[in-house]
Amino acid sequence: MDDRIHAHAETLVDWSARIEAGDDVVVKVSEGAHELGIAVAEELGARDANVVTLYGSDEIDRAYLRNHSGEFDENPPHELALYENADAVLSLGGGHNTMATADVPSEKRQEKSRATEGIREARMDTDWVSTVHPTRSLAQQAGMSFEAYQEFVYDAVLRDWEALAEEMAKMKELLDEGSEVRLVKENTDLTMSIEGRTAVNSAASVVYDSHNLPSGEVFTAPDATAGEVFFDVPMTINSQRVRDVHLEFDDGEVVDYSAGQNEAVIEEVLETDEGAKRLGELGIGMNRGIDQFTDSILFDEKMGDTVHLALGRAYTSNFPEGTEDEANESAVHVDMITEMGEDSRMEVDGEVVQRNGTFRWEDRFEE
Amino acid sequence: MDDRIHAHAETLVDWSARIEAGDDVVVKVSEGAHELGIAVAEELGARDANVVTLYGSDEIDRAYLRNHSGEFDENPPHELALYENADAVLSLGGGHNTMATADVPSEKRQEKSRATEGIREARMDTDWVSTVHPTRSLAQQAGMSFEAYQEFVYDAVLRDWEALAEEMAKMKELLDEGSEVRLVKENTDLTMSIEGRTAVNSAASVVYDSHNLPSGEVFTAPDATAGEVFFDVPMTINSQRVRDVHLEFDDGEVVDYSAGQNEAVIEEVLETDEGAKRLGELGIGMNRGIDQFTDSILFDEKMGDTVHLALGRAYTSNFPEGTEDEANESAVHVDMITEMGEDSRMEVDGEVVQRNGTFRWEDRFEE
Repeated sequence: MDDRIHAHAETLVDWSARIEAGDDVVVKVSEGAHELGIAVAEELGARDANVVTLYGSDEIDRAYLRNHSGEFDENPPHELALYENADAVLSLGGGHNTMATADVPSEKRQEKSRATEGIREARMDTDWVSTVHPTRSLAQQAGMSFEAYQEFVYDAVLRDWEALAEEMAKMKELLDEGSEVRLVKENTDLTMSIEGRTAVNSAASVVYDSHNLPSGEVFTAPDATAGEVFFDVPMTINSQRVRDVHLEFDDGEVVDYSAGQNEAVIEEVLETDEGAKRLGELGIGMNRGIDQFTDSILFDEKMGDTVHLALGRAYTSNFPEGTEDEANESAVHVDMITEMGEDSRMEVDGEVVQRNGTFRWEDRFEE
Repeated sequence: MDDRIHAHAETLVDWSARIEAGDDVVVKVSEGAHELGIAVAEELGARDANVVTLYGSDEIDRAYLRNHSGEFDENPPHELALYENADAVLSLGGGHNTMATADVPSEKRQEKSRATEGIREARMDTDWVSTVHPTRSLAQQAGMSFEAYQEFVYDAVLRDWEALAEEMAKMKELLDEGSEVRLVKENTDLTMSIEGRTAVNSAASVVYDSHNLPSGEVFTAPDATAGEVFFDVPMTINSQRVRDVHLEFDDGEVVDYSAGQNEAVIEEVLETDEGAKRLGELGIGMNRGIDQFTDSILFDEKMGDTVHLALGRAYTSNFPEGTEDEANESAVHVDMITEMGEDSRMEVDGEVVQRNGTFRWEDRFEE
């Protein structure tokens, strides 16, 4: 077996999920993630953890959902009990066809998701971590050869997480102490209030309240957004390719929008509910192991020297206990990404903290 | 997808497990059983059952067990809760290598099995059914081409179970009313008492207290065995090939034994404990869809016109409520098979009920 698979499993079990002897762990192995499943089992065995192994198959989900009447029982007790009694849930993604469920009516998926909200909550109450094993299907979606995609994934996953967490702590400190963020680049001059918010240092470990491997972003919940922003990174929203989105904000709300492709998708998102017109997240991608876009939000939004903004739902983790402010609520949370490379800057309270893709604590910053 | 896979899934869900709307079902999909997993998901979806899908991977089990210290926690709560809250458990066997766990120390497997006895019991308390999906690995073990093995499996599984259950009911009635069974063929003249026992009509459905698909045997618990018996079907016991076993009984106990190959394995079995010297089961194979031996006990012991006897543990299902007789106890239950074809007969209370591979209710019997 490829040494990188062992290293991936070790990072997942040790750095991300912090598994200890006696932990009751659920591992969900996707159709194409068998090898990572073996490597994770080795790590969990070596720690004397207790394991239940689930099968994550889009093809099986499709078969089930298409034949179901659509009237789903609320939180089936066997599945609920499994998660309620688990300490950690490790999801190993990576299938054989990213389009395997393309012909499942989305209403049925939503109805299932609604009926099993309690199961989702029980899972989120564990030390859960999601990662992906590189498969040919994901390489195809990324527009890459399998070998190049493997390198891409392991570059993103096998970081010096301790060092990155320390670096991200600097950005968190700036945001925690600051009141206003300003982004400036071509077609972009946007200000947001972050007064009273707590930034999350998402360092790919449950001890940082971070549940993705790879991660590598610092995020907070903006408010009172004003100005314009241009998203130059293409993305897939509601299964449709969207490019060159431009948004204009006033007093926290989107007041105008355009897109170079599939503009109607943006309209659809904005019309979901009141909260969909406001930002739920400002995220600063700091994982420089991710150096290209692969049409997968797990990776794209963490890419070094990017910023993403999400329309819709905010995370309560950005709201300190005791605050009277309320997190933006919405049925959606749609991330959109803009590069912060050449001719860009980010300011916190008027002070430049990132210029042309360099943070102010980096040597290159003054050049 | 092969129509036979759909038919297999329908038989499993309808005839065997009797799944109804709202049932909480656990499906365990083995490495090589993905296609059957899809077909079963279609059936369970169509019935509005609730499903948790487990991954049954020998390679993952091996990785876990080999790295574990061997001190296993008793009945991990997440796994226990899953089964305690399940109505049915469907195991879809069929891997890529029947020898995948050959280098796992057997003590470790036994220790795990001992520590998780409560989980096994919770699983057995559900409407559980085990079946196998034909894989190339199982075809290889059977010494057959993949295509021929597929035909073999579907011939065994896709029976008219209703008709077979009715036929087996005739044998059950003979055994329930009888007191003594005698088997006579070359090197075989064996008598057993079945007084006070209830035979089980194992018709591959939970409503018959039968948990294998395929099944097709009627079994009871013999006692006071006397005489000799020759097992002409080769079998694998404790991972070793054993041939031409000959046993001599007196007063219910084995008093002499020999084997044409690996005789030491028989000695090992007999020395396990006191119960290992006595019979725990007399089973009459009546599934004529199984017409050859494939070195898999799931199929071999149900083959039409065979009889199998097991040294060791008896099933309590053969002991009617209120009886003072106790089921034979032992750590082992080792099945051995003899053909009941040419020049053979089985008598119940002195009356011939099977002669040369024909039962007395069949037209050919008087020929």
